[in-house]
Amino acid sequence: MKELVAVNGQVMKPEDAKISVFDRGFLFGDAVYEVTRSYGKVFFQFEAHIDRLFRSAEWLKLDLGKTADRIIQEIYSIYKEIGEPNYYMRLQVTRGEGPIGMDPSLAGKPNYVLYFKPFEVPPKEYYTEGVDIAVTERLRNSKRSLDPNIKSGNYLNNVLAFIEGKEFRPYESVMMNSEGFITEGCTSNIQIVQGDTIVMTPDEFDILRGITRSLVEEVANTSGIQIQKRGFTAQELFDADEVFITSSTREIMPVKSANGKKTGKRSTVVRALQEGYKKKIEEYSRWAESHHPWN
Amino acid sequence: MKELVAVNGQVMKPEDAKISVFDRGFLFGDAVYEVTRSYGKVFFQFEAHIDRLFRSAEWLKLDLGKTADRIIQEIYSIYKEIGEPNYYMRLQVTRGEGPIGMDPSLAGKPNYVLYFKPFEVPPKEYYTEGVDIAVTERLRNSKRSLDPNIKSGNYLNNVLAFIEGKEFRPYESVMMNSEGFITEGCTSNIQIVQGDTIVMTPDEFDILRGITRSLVEEVANTSGIQIQKRGFTAQELFDADEVFITSSTREIMPVKSANGKKTGKRSTVVRALQEGYKKKIEEYSRWAESHHPWN
Repeated sequence: MKELVAVNGQVMKPEDAKISVFDRGFLFGDAVYEVTRSYGKVFFQFEAHIDRLFRSAEWLKLDLGKTADRIIQEIYSIYKEIGEPNYYMRLQVTRGEGPIGMDPSLAGKPNYVLYFKPFEVPPKEYYTEGVDIAVTERLRNSKRSLDPNIKSGNYLNNVLAFIEGKEFRPYESVMMNSEGFITEGCTSNIQIVQGDTIVMTPDEFDILRGITRSLVEEVANTSGIQIQKRGFTAQELFDADEVFITSSTREIMPVKSANGKKTGKRSTVVRALQEGYKKKIEEYSRWAESHHPWN
Repeated sequence: MKELVAVNGQVMKPEDAKISVFDRGFLFGDAVYEVTRSYGKVFFQFEAHIDRLFRSAEWLKLDLGKTADRIIQEIYSIYKEIGEPNYYMRLQVTRGEGPIGMDPSLAGKPNYVLYFKPFEVPPKEYYTEGVDIAVTERLRNSKRSLDPNIKSGNYLNNVLAFIEGKEFRPYESVMMNSEGFITEGCTSNIQIVQGDTIVMTPDEFDILRGITRSLVEEVANTSGIQIQKRGFTAQELFDADEVFITSSTREIMPVKSANGKKTGKRSTVVRALQEGYKKKIEEYSRWAESHHPWN
């Protein structure tokens, strides 16, 4: 079975995977999730993803009812049966089912929905030539409304940004904050390069502090690339030497146009980061092979 | 069958009602919904609710794939079989199922989930003595992020407000905007009365323009009660002569405390509105009996 779903540990075909219409994930988007991919046997940065799942849940006072180790163990116990070289993995945990109402205590125990499918590698030219993005006027959710650090089942803010950017047929759409600074993409972080310096949105902005974004910081630090954390505007993005997005499934991807206009063609810094990222994967895989629970 | 669900027109017991885990309502909260109740045979303000469902869907570019008349017809065709005097009705329409991604065009056709249960009338003293609320610091979603007028499957902003107010064991929790004005409750609108004047949040604030709230305006206009539309603060709420919430299922309910402090004990205006609202129901029911499609 190449593609499968496990609902609360029960493995089934995707077309058979169903959930109650009284699940709060369905009713309210009252759920948290993580997506990552494997490189061979290893899910990259697995601990960081599961840690973040716990942080998301903690902010929502959603009791996951299991330890991180247990979750990782359970995912591997299913994964080891399927054996493609590279897999996409998505774990969504909802607050569970119950009578309809805001009060979280109406819910029973959490529902775990795990989805595996063979990883579809993005076209090679996305990494060399870059991708098209749209810069929209859509404001990213404010932290004081719904913190973007909570990776939750509430994605309409992002869907609306995607719809708004649609005329440019973008690979990714990015959102703003109320001061006119760029925040993040629908499903990625975004950075620009000015000269030799990466300009990165500050941690305290309305963004998800991405795991790949953190790795970019690590790679930059060991490669002597400067990082400046400050807000940057759409105009700065249009004028930058390089622009790139980061995400766990897309890694580090240069941007070649924004709103139909060509962005900076240089790729010096992005190339260096891509190289450094590859090394991170190798290092992690070596470490994981003796630390992850295979059986 | 007292309580039932219809998924795409197929009637079943609530415990059998399931939806694909690839439904975008489950993945992203990419769905719209309405809740209303019946008084006898008639769903009150049914056209207004279904109109709003269409407006919510339009903002999300979600094609409902049916006309309003058809939806009303289908709901009544199920409703006429169950025959309790009063029912709660919730209709949720999702963008449908498809591969996981922001792009709405990945979805197939919408899924309709209709839920009926006998209406549980709130305790009588809620209408005479009032209910307890919490005033939280949680900011309501900004219109520029996700317009609260879109009655959608994204309710974590509201769930977080509920959690924040929990120490006061409130019946309802209300949210603020970034200027420090009160916006609305998790599932109701909120108004205050100063002297003979209802102070009501302006339409352009980050609120859902509730159907019961509109009826309050109509009743006030015909009863000679003044309405002032302006932002009001938590302090004004604490100091008001009367405070009340409005919703289709709860009608017009006075508030007796906020954050554990007693609020204004007077009930002159609220009583008048409750009386006027009753007349509205009677009028509407008479009209609907010759206009709604019973068979």
